[in-house]
Amino acid sequence: MFLKNTWYVGARSEELTNKPLGRTICNERVVFFRGKDNEVCAVEDFCPHRGAALSLGYIEDGNLVCGYHGLVMGCEGKTIAMPMQRVQGFPKIKRHAVAERHGLIWIWYGDPDLADVSTIPSFEWTDNPDWVYAGGVYHVKSDYRLMIDNLMDLTHETYVHKGSIGQPEIDESPVHTFMEGDIVVTKREMNGIYAPPHWQAALKAAGLAPEAKVDRWQYSRFYLPSHIMIDVGVALAGRGGYNAAAQDKVSSTVVNFMTPETDSTHWYFWGMARTYLLDDSEFTKHVQDEQRRIFAQDLDVLQAQQENLSAYPDRQLLMLNIDSGGVQARRQIERAMKEARHIGSVTS
Amino acid sequence: MFLKNTWYVGARSEELTNKPLGRTICNERVVFFRGKDNEVCAVEDFCPHRGAALSLGYIEDGNLVCGYHGLVMGCEGKTIAMPMQRVQGFPKIKRHAVAERHGLIWIWYGDPDLADVSTIPSFEWTDNPDWVYAGGVYHVKSDYRLMIDNLMDLTHETYVHKGSIGQPEIDESPVHTFMEGDIVVTKREMNGIYAPPHWQAALKAAGLAPEAKVDRWQYSRFYLPSHIMIDVGVALAGRGGYNAAAQDKVSSTVVNFMTPETDSTHWYFWGMARTYLLDDSEFTKHVQDEQRRIFAQDLDVLQAQQENLSAYPDRQLLMLNIDSGGVQARRQIERAMKEARHIGSVTS
Amino acid sequence: MFLKNTWYVGARSEELTNKPLGRTICNERVVFFRGKDNEVCAVEDFCPHRGAALSLGYIEDGNLVCGYHGLVMGCEGKTIAMPMQRVQGFPKIKRHAVAERHGLIWIWYGDPDLADVSTIPSFEWTDNPDWVYAGGVYHVKSDYRLMIDNLMDLTHETYVHKGSIGQPEIDESPVHTFMEGDIVVTKREMNGIYAPPHWQAALKAAGLAPEAKVDRWQYSRFYLPSHIMIDVGVALAGRGGYNAAAQDKVSSTVVNFMTPETDSTHWYFWGMARTYLLDDSEFTKHVQDEQRRIFAQDLDVLQAQQENLSAYPDRQLLMLNIDSGGVQARRQIERAMKEARHIGSVTS
Repeated sequence: MFLKNTWYVGARSEELTNKPLGRTICNERVVFFRGKDNEVCAVEDFCPHRGAALSLGYIEDGNLVCGYHGLVMGCEGKTIAMPMQRVQGFPKIKRHAVAERHGLIWIWYGDPDLADVSTIPSFEWTDNPDWVYAGGVYHVKSDYRLMIDNLMDLTHETYVHKGSIGQPEIDESPVHTFMEGDIVVTKREMNGIYAPPHWQAALKAAGLAPEAKVDRWQYSRFYLPSHIMIDVGVALAGRGGYNAAAQDKVSSTVVNFMTPETDSTHWYFWGMARTYLLDDSEFTKHVQDEQRRIFAQDLDVLQAQQENLSAYPDRQLLMLNIDSGGVQARRQIERAMKEARHIGSVTS
Repeated sequence: MFLKNTWYVGARSEELTNKPLGRTICNERVVFFRGKDNEVCAVEDFCPHRGAALSLGYIEDGNLVCGYHGLVMGCEGKTIAMPMQRVQGFPKIKRHAVAERHGLIWIWYGDPDLADVSTIPSFEWTDNPDWVYAGGVYHVKSDYRLMIDNLMDLTHETYVHKGSIGQPEIDESPVHTFMEGDIVVTKREMNGIYAPPHWQAALKAAGLAPEAKVDRWQYSRFYLPSHIMIDVGVALAGRGGYNAAAQDKVSSTVVNFMTPETDSTHWYFWGMARTYLLDDSEFTKHVQDEQRRIFAQDLDVLQAQQENLSAYPDRQLLMLNIDSGGVQARRQIERAMKEARHIGSVTS
Repeated sequence: MFLKNTWYVGARSEELTNKPLGRTICNERVVFFRGKDNEVCAVEDFCPHRGAALSLGYIEDGNLVCGYHGLVMGCEGKTIAMPMQRVQGFPKIKRHAVAERHGLIWIWYGDPDLADVSTIPSFEWTDNPDWVYAGGVYHVKSDYRLMIDNLMDLTHETYVHKGSIGQPEIDESPVHTFMEGDIVVTKREMNGIYAPPHWQAALKAAGLAPEAKVDRWQYSRFYLPSHIMIDVGVALAGRGGYNAAAQDKVSSTVVNFMTPETDSTHWYFWGMARTYLLDDSEFTKHVQDEQRRIFAQDLDVLQAQQENLSAYPDRQLLMLNIDSGGVQARRQIERAMKEARHIGSVTS
């Protein structure tokens, strides 16, 4: 069961070219395509004629033409035309409210009339000349909530990402989990340590001494339905950490959107936004490749964990202090689902 | 559920060499092999000794020897011999009536005693020096009836086979569906048009002007249980179309036998018989390769359609005039099944 | 259902290096690792913290460290430590009694307190300078009992292993099945025959005439829960067969341990121990490669047989005299299961 009346990330803008894109989201097949004026559309991936996959068709004049018998599907789920046919009586197919923001395609899975684009989150890093952003997408064979647990507890970096962003000090520093309104925050600070390889490279790239002692921070923030923004960075030790002056630190926001595909799989849209070396596109590419490589390490772990949990569904797990972020995030989801069930806006 | 007391195409003659061939047909495992005097046999692919797959064995003296412990299985499903064993009491395994006609192996899935080889359809193009034939077989992950729909409505050629046999005029010409006795016929004529690439090549090959205006025709005929013969061709415009003199036209019969494998998969035996360039074996090879390539385009479409229909089994589909051929064909199948159920000759 | 309070072979010693090994045995996931003093441990492959697969972790100071958040699991299934956590209250996970003998890791699937290493079988060929042993492991997609049937009736060698160890005379010689206490024995002797290729090579390697007439023997012995030792060999004809003097024969023991993975798959630990050419490690390697190649021929047969039996679960099979060994072995298993059920020591 998934929350419906909410915005999920359905695709990256660059995935939507001049061809339709079929994708399962929240257990339903959907096809995205660019309609008139490049505006993004999303309808069921099911031709009302004979059930062909519309995603195998092509785009013409802002409509999606079924590749089987030429039915022309419009952005609103209404059949526009079909050769030699009167189409007025054709049943409508489901359409989804959709919007393009921050280089991402957002999809509202519930009643389109309730969709309000002003509720799509805004981020400091988008359309902001002081930031640069790059990302990607992974298909992950695990419940999306296992990725939430993963990202709300960065202890795992010490083990899963040894040699890049992991270091023993993460593990040895306590975490604090608290709420900022509806937002779950997990905070960890490690002061007076040496930076791990990833941050040493960032310090060096920013003209700071890679071997200097630093204060390191990680703030993970969970937002419904399933977004996690992680403020991370290092400052020269004793300069104020997160609040240090710009020239004394390197920092970035790790951007994570988890979109359920099925009950046990999800789409993971990851990225990083940073405030240093803004004009260095080669460095941006390097960071993107590095993040792609590092985040792939999580997939094996999560997929094996999912197999274990599927094999032993009744098994109780531990909830330690380091798990508080994930536990609180799941509680937010459950609370929202309970409310949503009252108004019938949960998808099965 | 499938019709039993009827002939299906089980294999192409050339698939049956000096080795047995295991294949699932109508949800049952069967093994074909050439027995005495090259006569084709078909029995269950299940050794009565320990359940080994007989299709992994070998042929010796017209019998099939199990590759596990040497049980010798005869054409009639009776164990002939086994080293050191008395086999009289061995249970018989199911055997199927089978016959070789038109370069194809025909199998009767019901009571072998009811099988009448005279009811195997005959075709003008077989053993006829005025015709030449070539074909192939595809395994398709869809209900065989989706292929029937496909072939009884050639509208799809405009979309699926753009650039070879498709052209917009197909789409723009009305179809007529009617019965010829038990046979469902769908007919489409397009007069005074330019030939699409495939037919331009055929015109040229036959010494006619490829760029000439032509009258084009397509007559699809459905026969129980699941055969479709499609008469197709082009004649120089105004010379009588289908009835034009031989020197003014090029024509062929697209031959299609759909044999259920399981409820959602089938074997698709396709081919083409033509009346021009009879002695040009290179052209025959070219047409066969071209047909293999073109018909592969249907597989993706049908397989995605099957996935959609399996995901939403209760969804109503439209039945337009272009779908009449498929609808009527399915009605013939259902009628025959209903009759067959009365006499218990439907396989589950 | 499988016998629990018994020793199975879980792995080959050489599979356990400095990394943990995850493997499903009797429908349960287990992870093997070398603990303190190289002693082998086996616990559930399920981290008590969040269900991660412990087999993705690493070994440190004789404990298994979870690769996700660093929980340290001990050999006894008790959490030893976890950074920043008090672990006394952590639930124990299942641990299995385990022992290393004969180059194999033995695992007891029932109550560890009942495990008695003295009941691990001993073999003449282990730690014996008069023998040399080499083997391997296969994953087989069949019920482990199909492999028992296979090995208790070597008739199949004539068909499955034609050209190596098979020869018509196997098929033409009667077998005798009898009990030696709890042990099921199937015995076949073929006197005054020519050796098949495998044994010709062995004769030659041992300095005997490969083309000589020989007396050949095969004694298969089944031991609970699922081990089969096969004494095989050839002696120069008329010198006493199995009892011939060492210089007149070549012989070996084919070693087979079948360990259930799931109801329809198993791990097959195979090997061969011999008493000739003891110092020729190249010949040992050759025999091992040859056995790997020959035994792979069984896999296709068994996997197709399993598919057939799964498709037709109610089908009766024949039980011929050649099948007596397998039938008796299955009877031993069923009798032991029945006894075990009384004391609740059968795993589902």
